Amino acid sequence: MPLKFTVVSESKNTRARLGRLETPHGVIQTPVFMPVGTQATVKTAAPRELEDLGVEIILSNTYHLYLRPGSDVVAEAGGLHKFMNWNRPILTDSGGFQVFSLGPLRTISEEGVHFRSHLDGSKHFISPEKSMQIQMDLGADIAMAFDECAPYPADRDYVKKSKDLTTRWAKRCQTAHTRSDQALFGIVQGGMYKDLRKESALEIMELDFPGYGIGGLSVGEPKDMMYEVLDDLVPIMPRDKPRYLMGVGSPDCLVEAVLRGVDMFDCVWPTRLARHGMVITRQGNMAIRNLPFARDFTPIEEECSCYACQNFSRAYIRHLLKAGEVLGIRLTTIHNIAFLTRLMQEVREAIAADRLLEYSRDFLSVFGTEK
Amino acid sequence: MPLKFTVVSESKNTRARLGRLETPHGVIQTPVFMPVGTQATVKTAAPRELEDLGVEIILSNTYHLYLRPGSDVVAEAGGLHKFMNWNRPILTDSGGFQVFSLGPLRTISEEGVHFRSHLDGSKHFISPEKSMQIQMDLGADIAMAFDECAPYPADRDYVKKSKDLTTRWAKRCQTAHTRSDQALFGIVQGGMYKDLRKESALEIMELDFPGYGIGGLSVGEPKDMMYEVLDDLVPIMPRDKPRYLMGVGSPDCLVEAVLRGVDMFDCVWPTRLARHGMVITRQGNMAIRNLPFARDFTPIEEECSCYACQNFSRAYIRHLLKAGEVLGIRLTTIHNIAFLTRLMQEVREAIAADRLLEYSRDFLSVFGTEK
Repeated sequence: MPLKFTVVSESKNTRARLGRLETPHGVIQTPVFMPVGTQATVKTAAPRELEDLGVEIILSNTYHLYLRPGSDVVAEAGGLHKFMNWNRPILTDSGGFQVFSLGPLRTISEEGVHFRSHLDGSKHFISPEKSMQIQMDLGADIAMAFDECAPYPADRDYVKKSKDLTTRWAKRCQTAHTRSDQALFGIVQGGMYKDLRKESALEIMELDFPGYGIGGLSVGEPKDMMYEVLDDLVPIMPRDKPRYLMGVGSPDCLVEAVLRGVDMFDCVWPTRLARHGMVITRQGNMAIRNLPFARDFTPIEEECSCYACQNFSRAYIRHLLKAGEVLGIRLTTIHNIAFLTRLMQEVREAIAADRLLEYSRDFLSVFGTEK
Repeated sequence: MPLKFTVVSESKNTRARLGRLETPHGVIQTPVFMPVGTQATVKTAAPRELEDLGVEIILSNTYHLYLRPGSDVVAEAGGLHKFMNWNRPILTDSGGFQVFSLGPLRTISEEGVHFRSHLDGSKHFISPEKSMQIQMDLGADIAMAFDECAPYPADRDYVKKSKDLTTRWAKRCQTAHTRSDQALFGIVQGGMYKDLRKESALEIMELDFPGYGIGGLSVGEPKDMMYEVLDDLVPIMPRDKPRYLMGVGSPDCLVEAVLRGVDMFDCVWPTRLARHGMVITRQGNMAIRNLPFARDFTPIEEECSCYACQNFSRAYIRHLLKAGEVLGIRLTTIHNIAFLTRLMQEVREAIAADRLLEYSRDFLSVFGTEK
């Protein structure tokens, strides 16, 4: 098996657990947040900067790499790790979510999805088998099954059909996936319908994947609804497999989901926020372009050890952002990744010391207000 | 004196010399190329990356910093070094060149220059005294006199008046400049007219500055014309003061000007070129976005020790540039600065070994063809 997951310790009064995920490119400590490197680069950051920040795994996007530079080019480079010079673990998504997001540019059938490239309008087709082939070419440590992610809101009938299709596709993915140094995760769907979620979980777990994605959440529903789905779903998921909540990355959601037993997360939000000049702090998000920071010569966060906070002032970063200088979004990106990496580190320490509930209460007293 | 310049050795059969320039923020070995950090940042690069590349001094632009964030903000931060976290030497230009480049947005009088900001159209006035005040606020190691840079072509009468004005302004700058930990360089003008160049040199040298800029070259004239001006001008400049050829940075011009006795250079060209996806190599400039590099998994230059060449392939950098990813222009910028820094290092070694003529001949056999 390319993957070994060990539950190191469990929180007594929550569902949180501390885990250790061994992959061909190294060990990941869970709960973990994975920064997103859509096009084989975490936007604005260099691999050595991510290593310095303690990032243990990144996510990259199959749809984007398939279109550009082409998975054949990445394979010829020796795989995604070599291509982008990132020697730690990588997870690739299946391409499904991006393809479905194309709206009128795509049509779904039992066989797969026909779509037109958002880059040049060219016609393409991705099936479960094709997604597996692309992901095997990319060579990430963890690949994801090709699923259909139902939108929110969606009626029960649509979500049921979508969930059934996802199960049939999961089987085809499992058959098509043959790369022995890569783990394939199944994905649970079922929208906001508890019975469909349960059906999906049982069907997907029946296939016995080495890990499970929880898809179709954080797609526009209220946060409380997401937490309710997790409250119902996680207890029927196996204890000894990593649970990955896809597309979630705001600080409050991370902590709430860890409390509910989730191990892995990814989201473009913290890095996208950074490129819009917003930095995450213990006092909430801060629009550093604003005038009050023009003569603020303190760092973004006094207690943060990232390169941005150790070397530059809010006033300087504001100047860079106002002047459209790349270094500005580099520094906000570094800080936001540092913030989430440190948050997950603290969460792990709190689980180990069995004081996660207190930690969460303190933390959410600021971030929980953003619901 | 805030500056000490020592000629370490001289080339026997050229005018080149190896120098050592001591400043309040450290020693610079000359001949030296100064990357340009227009808005208090060398575009796309972080200070630690420039340090890693062996950059010993950068240039920053008074006009831009005066408008944004304002020299008062920089002064309040503790000066430009602290503001941008660059602890090695800095040279600031006078703002003159940028202001004159505004064309219809400015009017020149004996007193100074009235102009409108290119950012918001607001009205401003910079005089020699104001330029000194701004540069003293910025606190670079080397400030430049406020001069008028005549365009090319320009008739003799215009250039003479402009040169005379530059001399009068140089005196006013010298009077107004009072910062003891900052050196002020005079600037020789005179366009392409040899007699005016000589007059300007004698007038400016009469004022006894600790270093001299050569302005008004590389403004559109043929390269041979620039070399002829240097051939005439440099021999009448003092041996014991640094000579700074402003705005020059293509590899062939650097080598040709070093042969003619120039010690310092700056230019936006190598970093601007990088942002357009062009990398400088021993084989000439290379448009790395081009199709032939799509599956070229070799580095930009096999023998280059920069972060880009040590870690990434042409194919990957091409992918980043095609995909509009910031890391692409970060890597091309790093490489181009590395190329020029290494070139100047080699030039210094060649002077020390008194084999600069041979070195130049070999080097210019590639780059000299671009005239």
